[in-house]
Amino acid sequence: MAGRNANAPRILIVGGVAGGASAATRARRCNESAEIVIFEKGPYVSFANCGLPYHVGGEIEDRDKLLVATPELFQQRFNIDVRVEHEVLSIDRENRSIKVRGPHGESNEPYDRLILSPGAEPIVPPFAKGTFKNVFNLWTMPDMDAILSRLGKAAPKRAVVVGAGFVGLEVVEQLQRRGLDVSLVEKSPHVLPPLDVEMARIVERELRDHEVDLHTGNGIAGLRSNDGIASAAVLDDETNLEADLFILSIGVRPRTKLAADAGLEIGEARGIRVNESMQTSDPNIYAVGDAVEYEHGVLHRPARVPLAGPANRAGRIAGEHAATGRSSAMASVMGTAVVRVFEKTVALTGISETMAKREHKRVRSAIIRATNHAGYFPGAEPLVLKLIYEEGFGRILGAQCVGGEGVDKRIDVIATAMHFGATVEDLAGLDLAYAPPFGSAKDPVHMAAFVAANDLDARPPLLPPGTVLDGYQVVDVRTASEIETLPLKGAVHIPIDELRERANEIDPKRPTVVVCHSAKRAHVGAMLLCGLGFQDVRNLTGGMSIRSLVEPVGESTT
Amino acid sequence: MAGRNANAPRILIVGGVAGGASAATRARRCNESAEIVIFEKGPYVSFANCGLPYHVGGEIEDRDKLLVATPELFQQRFNIDVRVEHEVLSIDRENRSIKVRGPHGESNEPYDRLILSPGAEPIVPPFAKGTFKNVFNLWTMPDMDAILSRLGKAAPKRAVVVGAGFVGLEVVEQLQRRGLDVSLVEKSPHVLPPLDVEMARIVERELRDHEVDLHTGNGIAGLRSNDGIASAAVLDDETNLEADLFILSIGVRPRTKLAADAGLEIGEARGIRVNESMQTSDPNIYAVGDAVEYEHGVLHRPARVPLAGPANRAGRIAGEHAATGRSSAMASVMGTAVVRVFEKTVALTGISETMAKREHKRVRSAIIRATNHAGYFPGAEPLVLKLIYEEGFGRILGAQCVGGEGVDKRIDVIATAMHFGATVEDLAGLDLAYAPPFGSAKDPVHMAAFVAANDLDARPPLLPPGTVLDGYQVVDVRTASEIETLPLKGAVHIPIDELRERANEIDPKRPTVVVCHSAKRAHVGAMLLCGLGFQDVRNLTGGMSIRSLVEPVGESTT
Repeated sequence: MAGRNANAPRILIVGGVAGGASAATRARRCNESAEIVIFEKGPYVSFANCGLPYHVGGEIEDRDKLLVATPELFQQRFNIDVRVEHEVLSIDRENRSIKVRGPHGESNEPYDRLILSPGAEPIVPPFAKGTFKNVFNLWTMPDMDAILSRLGKAAPKRAVVVGAGFVGLEVVEQLQRRGLDVSLVEKSPHVLPPLDVEMARIVERELRDHEVDLHTGNGIAGLRSNDGIASAAVLDDETNLEADLFILSIGVRPRTKLAADAGLEIGEARGIRVNESMQTSDPNIYAVGDAVEYEHGVLHRPARVPLAGPANRAGRIAGEHAATGRSSAMASVMGTAVVRVFEKTVALTGISETMAKREHKRVRSAIIRATNHAGYFPGAEPLVLKLIYEEGFGRILGAQCVGGEGVDKRIDVIATAMHFGATVEDLAGLDLAYAPPFGSAKDPVHMAAFVAANDLDARPPLLPPGTVLDGYQVVDVRTASEIETLPLKGAVHIPIDELRERANEIDPKRPTVVVCHSAKRAHVGAMLLCGLGFQDVRNLTGGMSIRSLVEPVGESTT
Repeated sequence: MAGRNANAPRILIVGGVAGGASAATRARRCNESAEIVIFEKGPYVSFANCGLPYHVGGEIEDRDKLLVATPELFQQRFNIDVRVEHEVLSIDRENRSIKVRGPHGESNEPYDRLILSPGAEPIVPPFAKGTFKNVFNLWTMPDMDAILSRLGKAAPKRAVVVGAGFVGLEVVEQLQRRGLDVSLVEKSPHVLPPLDVEMARIVERELRDHEVDLHTGNGIAGLRSNDGIASAAVLDDETNLEADLFILSIGVRPRTKLAADAGLEIGEARGIRVNESMQTSDPNIYAVGDAVEYEHGVLHRPARVPLAGPANRAGRIAGEHAATGRSSAMASVMGTAVVRVFEKTVALTGISETMAKREHKRVRSAIIRATNHAGYFPGAEPLVLKLIYEEGFGRILGAQCVGGEGVDKRIDVIATAMHFGATVEDLAGLDLAYAPPFGSAKDPVHMAAFVAANDLDARPPLLPPGTVLDGYQVVDVRTASEIETLPLKGAVHIPIDELRERANEIDPKRPTVVVCHSAKRAHVGAMLLCGLGFQDVRNLTGGMSIRSLVEPVGESTT
């Protein structure tokens, strides 16, 4: 134990942002005798990395607000020695020491416990690795300062943001807020790849409504430049997007080199492998944050989830365990996330339907439209909620929600239920708070669960929004004016309130799909037809409001 | 089966609001062949009873918006026969028929399945049972219309609202909104009796800040009146509150007479006893809504929960079971509720600490102050969250939250976790959505769970906010200016960042309590003192911000 008392370990922490800072303060609170040192490669510890885009856009006005805790506070309140601009070069596990390079040279620092919180680093394509004056990542305070400096000096008018993940979307919004014209480039077929396509389409509509020039299914192939100034992004399809500012937000790569070089086990998800106490394959070395693998609550295998929430919780656990030898167990993570995109909120948890299929899960899904609170109360905002669940028992695999107020609440409720392995029936029975300004007696979460439960009971089965309907007798129960607004070819039109009388106009033996705007009336109609002896009736989940967002794809009609 | 096909039962429903309306439409969707009739005593079915106060205040402008579904819609879309102004007088279980009195006389109606959704009725004290022209309940559309008519005709200036439950508080807010001066009378020692006192005090402060004249711990004893016009409420302590409008919102009584007269079992909570399919002691008769007993998820015994959410969910289950002979099971209820009180949102789930003690549970509690989202992001609003949990394993018994934006979300998350019998550790591990506009990497739910987990681990134990501190060495770690604003007598003042150096000024052998504004720095300080060998250190939960709301009460100092 580095020559020290077992109750007073020397705890070294590599990386002083989310996970590392949480580990350090928790370690101190649990052990006043420990010696605790944080080595941070960059110039700042404990900064609000999730806030960076919002200072770029000026929504967070005061830069100092991003500095959540200073080295001085760590020292004074917690007796924690913070050494910024100190890079940890290597770990000598046998002698329990690390080699550190700081402004005044290299040194070896002995440890009893080592906590790695190295984070991740932005992926930069080779062609962007030069020293362009107007091409940036946005991952650290210095990144942000560089962007702001460029915005100040060169007053760019047009920006290209590459990558439509969480950070990319926040940057797009904030650059628009500053008055720039923004193009957004995403290699995947739709923005926010963790979403299913129909949900992503709603986000894309929001982007277009705010005049974002959107290029999906189109990666960046190169940059045209002159004298260190990039002048255009060249896309895979050879489109040239001229601009005077470029932000790359393509993704991040876990910083595992230090751990791997020391022989610590790296998992199949290419993160540092840890146990539930956040110990690596060396029990004296812990790891937390973007560089590690967490147990995924839906996939039931280790996965990387580079988000601030798990990093903070894992840091707390590692800090306690390093300081005392015990801790609670790190809970599995669901990948729950939320992002604001102009007037819309987009949130998700668990896995998408696309991913569930890739995992060979027997998956079904239901999409509902609802308002965040009672429709009769002023200010109700619409939301679309998709629930993804397994056939059979209906275990919830994931959920996605896009809308205004209250989107984050519904996803948090579902993520909470998923923590306990919830089924569709569990969601349907939740006792949620209701008053007209806050919800509905049947909350959107209930409605989605009711729809899913009906689907699981084949009452009636749901069809995905993009299903090719050629093999079906399609019964459109909308009003004439709804149909005019959003036509559906080849359908028999019988308004819902006439369906009972006019059911004899359609063939009870043919496979039938009932369609309305949001699938609510269609459910009533489909059940009615079932009750009248129709042999194979389906409901198109989400109705025309969702189908109109996607191209029909060739699914079997059975 | 009333002479009919078993697959085409005649289903009669008594009461056409929340539970009854849900039962009827669900029954139809599940069984196209059933004959379904709703008998509703009042003139409206399926009206938004939770919206009534908001139309009184004018926040919901259009009265028609409160009529969620009309008899015509029931008929046209669902082939459901709605008979308003039909009172069901008695049930003949042997012959499966009910006696009904409508506008055109009495009749007997046979049933195969009967669903009772009679609701509750407002409790009216004897002295208010006359025909005062200016004394009202607010429970039905006609009640609301009568109040609005009085407001229009007599233009009252001063109102007395009796009863500070959910409806009472909504009425107070809405009458203020119309420009009336409002007095609020509550017999219990504080508003919203399901809350614990310190949380209720925050609500009371909000009421006073909006110039509500508040009288707690003081019931109404009588009315002074002249010529059918009440002129003052006389309280238990003989205070006279002069006013020209009186709204009674004292509570409700379940309408169980019809069921009881028919020999159906009434439970210990004085509601109609039902099983998980909502069947009464007669399996052909179902009951739902305010008149029944639900299984309480914390108390694990039947309880009445007169709220719209459970009524709607129970109605759906009863409707399906009556129509098909099967259904999912009604989940236990937690009594989750929310109410807006001016700028504050107040939400709760499970049971209060007061009630837990009455139930002889070994209960502990933690109170935190946090903001609804990252403090560095503009518009963060404070909230206070109280978590109530059992000693030992830390099963969650309840939660209460008062604040602005995001209060309902935290209570819904905790209520969802409680559905699964969650512990404090479960809450600490939830993977909740985080981005700066929506939450914090450590959400208030996590923070409350962390504080509770520390308490359960005696790291350090928490003291209730009102604890008498005479026996303790009190260490106040706030800044001098904080102490000036909110003084605490008899404390040693050592600012948190000086505590490590100055700990020698205090006695490590004396029972010690550390105090700050919100209990966060006090936690750091208490752990520091523990680490320095102090033998008995406590933290005052919620800190001075909560203690300042309550009178210290005589608790033992151990």
